[in-house]
This record gives sequence, structure tokens and C-alpha cells, in this order.
Amino acid sequence: MNDTIKLLQNHVSIRNFKDEELTEEQIKTIVKSAQMAATSSFMQAYSIIGVKNKDTKQKLAELAGNQAYVAKNGHFFVFCADFYRHKLGAELEQFNEPLATESTEKFLVGSIDASLAAQNAVIAAESMGLGTVYIGGIRSNIEKVSKLLKLPDHVIPIVGLAVGYSDQESSIKPRLPLENVYHVDQYEQNVELTKKQLQNYNQVISAYYSQRTNGIRNERWTEQMTKMLASEKRLTLKSFLIQKQFLLK
Amino acid sequence: MNDTIKLLQNHVSIRNFKDEELTEEQIKTIVKSAQMAATSSFMQAYSIIGVKNKDTKQKLAELAGNQAYVAKNGHFFVFCADFYRHKLGAELEQFNEPLATESTEKFLVGSIDASLAAQNAVIAAESMGLGTVYIGGIRSNIEKVSKLLKLPDHVIPIVGLAVGYSDQESSIKPRLPLENVYHVDQYEQNVELTKKQLQNYNQVISAYYSQRTNGIRNERWTEQMTKMLASEKRLTLKSFLIQKQFLLK
Repeated sequence: MNDTIKLLQNHVSIRNFKDEELTEEQIKTIVKSAQMAATSSFMQAYSIIGVKNKDTKQKLAELAGNQAYVAKNGHFFVFCADFYRHKLGAELEQFNEPLATESTEKFLVGSIDASLAAQNAVIAAESMGLGTVYIGGIRSNIEKVSKLLKLPDHVIPIVGLAVGYSDQESSIKPRLPLENVYHVDQYEQNVELTKKQLQNYNQVISAYYSQRTNGIRNERWTEQMTKMLASEKRLTLKSFLIQKQFLLK
Repeated sequence: MNDTIKLLQNHVSIRNFKDEELTEEQIKTIVKSAQMAATSSFMQAYSIIGVKNKDTKQKLAELAGNQAYVAKNGHFFVFCADFYRHKLGAELEQFNEPLATESTEKFLVGSIDASLAAQNAVIAAESMGLGTVYIGGIRSNIEKVSKLLKLPDHVIPIVGLAVGYSDQESSIKPRLPLENVYHVDQYEQNVELTKKQLQNYNQVISAYYSQRTNGIRNERWTEQMTKMLASEKRLTLKSFLIQKQFLLK
């Protein structure tokens, strides 16, 4: 197992960071690494906002549901899907017809591009001894977050990322059994087998929580998921996307 | 610069693979690395289909727009957004209410989860000396691809990934200027500055193509993008997502 594989397989999310800012050099290395991720048809349909200003970080932390680590970290990034520069590019080309950036497909392209870049940023940061945590919470108040970061039309926040020096102990969280996630040639059709895998995994996760909390928590994975998915979340996303000229087709 | 950063920053897409299959051990390492990527609220809302069967690969290659490297590679993966196992989990929990998996937010969660896992797979593969190329083309005939892979409702293909031993020379493709992609505290408001950056980048890309093709190609980036975005693509995605119980809210 090479060092990069070890790094990938030892990933944990960090939610307590030391009060030490990343250097400009570190930020540049992370962004350059992010930029080298593959991009659909070379569209590079994303932008990254680096949030340095303490007030902005504090506001973001509140908008993300009062998550302290959005404000207290080494640096905070917001990865956005972005077709705005393609619009400006079309102006440079003196092309005055509408540009095909408003479809569901292009929303997906921007989301994938932003995610691939973000994951490269995570790997780069971790390889430098830094910890990271993704913040989906920036979508909880997506309109306010977009205004705060002054995002134009055709640009939407996809996911936040806090990076910094870890100030916590952490242990690797066991994932679903490989055979539950990985299917050969076609999706597993045996429902009973899949349920059996989930039940086995429930025991693994229950033991994991119990061990970490001295027996205070011991919920099953399917229990945790079912409770969480019992209520809707972030239902404003669809209308916001439409307002920002995505998902129109 | 550490070895992982070097690996990230030296990424190139590979479209010509040797006729040598990945071993089961290599596939397992790649999938395990993919699984360790972060996942929104521990939902692990994705599945990976590994396509081994030669006929299936050939059909996929046709459905992806006759891309030969979808069939000829070391292994082919399809990363899917997946909330099907959460439905089965709810059955295990004897929860009979509808599950909140049908929103635009959950579509985005599944897309991000699948993309982060896919990018970890790419990094793992490249660290083992393999080459990769993402295949968005699996969305060109997304309904047929889904039927071929027997994907149930609540599961949709997000992106394909061909992996294998490279059989080509390749050179790193220059990305947009860092300051065009990376914004500090708020999105760059100066349109003229952004256009200037794009014009400078146009020269870089024009020179890149010219050098690679002995002057046969020399298009600008904004020219390439504008031509590509002049026509719509994959407009069936929206109705397909709705049919598969995504984007309903």
C-alpha cells in the first residue's frame, strides 16, 4: 500500500481546529491541486471562494446552522458551480445567442466539477498534515450565503470546506461493506442479501458509536438514516437554483 | 512539494489504454479508497458498478457516444447516486412513512457523494501507476444505461470512469489562471478584470493546442466553450431524474 492510498484510506473529518491560519503558500498549493482535477469537457465550471474575513466567516458559521468550525479553522473554502465566466467568454466571442448553461445536465456538470476540485483540495490538505471537514450546511441558507459572497447569476454554492490544524483525536469511521456499495456488471437484485448486509453493518456501526461514547450512543446505521430522512431538509434549493438560472430545462 | 501533491498536480486524462485488465486486488484497493471519501451526514448515498462483462462494456461504449475507451481499458466503473439502500433501511426499521430522498437537495447530496468517491478512486488509481478518464457520456443515453445496469428507482448514474494502463503520451493541460478561479471573501465583481484574465488564458490555450497539433488546432478557450455551449445537450436528464424519484421537490 503506497503512501497516497494510506492517506486516502485513513481519512477522518476534523471539527476542532487550532487557531492557526493557513499560509498563502498552503492556500495556493491547495487551490492549484484542486484545479488539476478532471473537468467535464474542459469546462472548468466552478469557482472557489476563500473566506479570510473574520466577520464573513462568523456570518457563514451562523448561516450554516451555528457550526463553530466554519468560523474557527485555518481557512474556509466555498466550492461553487460556475457558468458565469462562460457567459463573459461568449461576450468576448461576440456571440449573442443564449448559452446552453441552464439545463439540469449543466447543473450536474457544475456540481461534479466543483466536487472533484474539492476532493483534490481535501487530499492536498491532508497530505500536508492538515485536517478538513465538508460543510453542506452552507446550503441551509443558500440565498443568504450567496448574497454574502456576492455570487452573480449562474453561480451557486455547492459545498463548504474547513481546513486547518487538527485539535482533536479521531478514529476512522467504518464504511458500508464493500459488496454493498460495489456491484459487478449490474446492480445487486437480491433484496434480502442487501438487507442482510445492512443488518451486519448495523452491528458494526452500533459497536463503533458505543465504543467511542462509553455506551451512551449505540444506534444502528439504518436507524440513524431513517430518523434523519424522516424529515425534509433544504427545500428552498430548487427554487433558488431556478432563480439563479439553473435547472430551467 | 510532497509526492501526493505532485500526483494531483500532474493529472492528465488517458484515453488509450493497454489491453490489460486490473486485478481484483487493484479494484478492491480503488473501491476501498473511494469509500473512505467524506460523505454528507454519513449517508454514503452512492453505489459503484464495476463493469467486467465485455458485451456490457461494448454496449456502454456505444451508449456513451461510441467512445472506444469505455470498452477498451483495464476496468470500467459507473458512479451512481443511490438512496435505494436507505429505502431498504427504512423497511428494516419498520418505518412506513415516505422518506425524504426525493428533493433537489438529496439529488445534490448523492451527486456530491458519488463525485467525491470517484475522485478518490482516480487518485488511488493514479498513485498505483494507472491512468483514468471520466465519462460524462454515460448520461447521453441515461435511461438505456440505467436499464443495462439494472438500476432500481432512487439510483441514477452520475459519471463513468475508465481506468487502466496508459498507452499514450500526454501533456498537462493548463487550467484557468488561479486568480480567475479563486476569489477572496467575495466573488470578483470586476468584469473587465475577469475578461482580461480570460483573454490571457485564451493565448495560453491557443498556444497549447497549436504546440500539440503542429499548428492545426489553435482555438481560444472562450471560442471552444462558446461553440460547445451554443447547443443544448442531454435535455432528457430532468425528466429521467423525476421518473427515478429525484428532483420532485
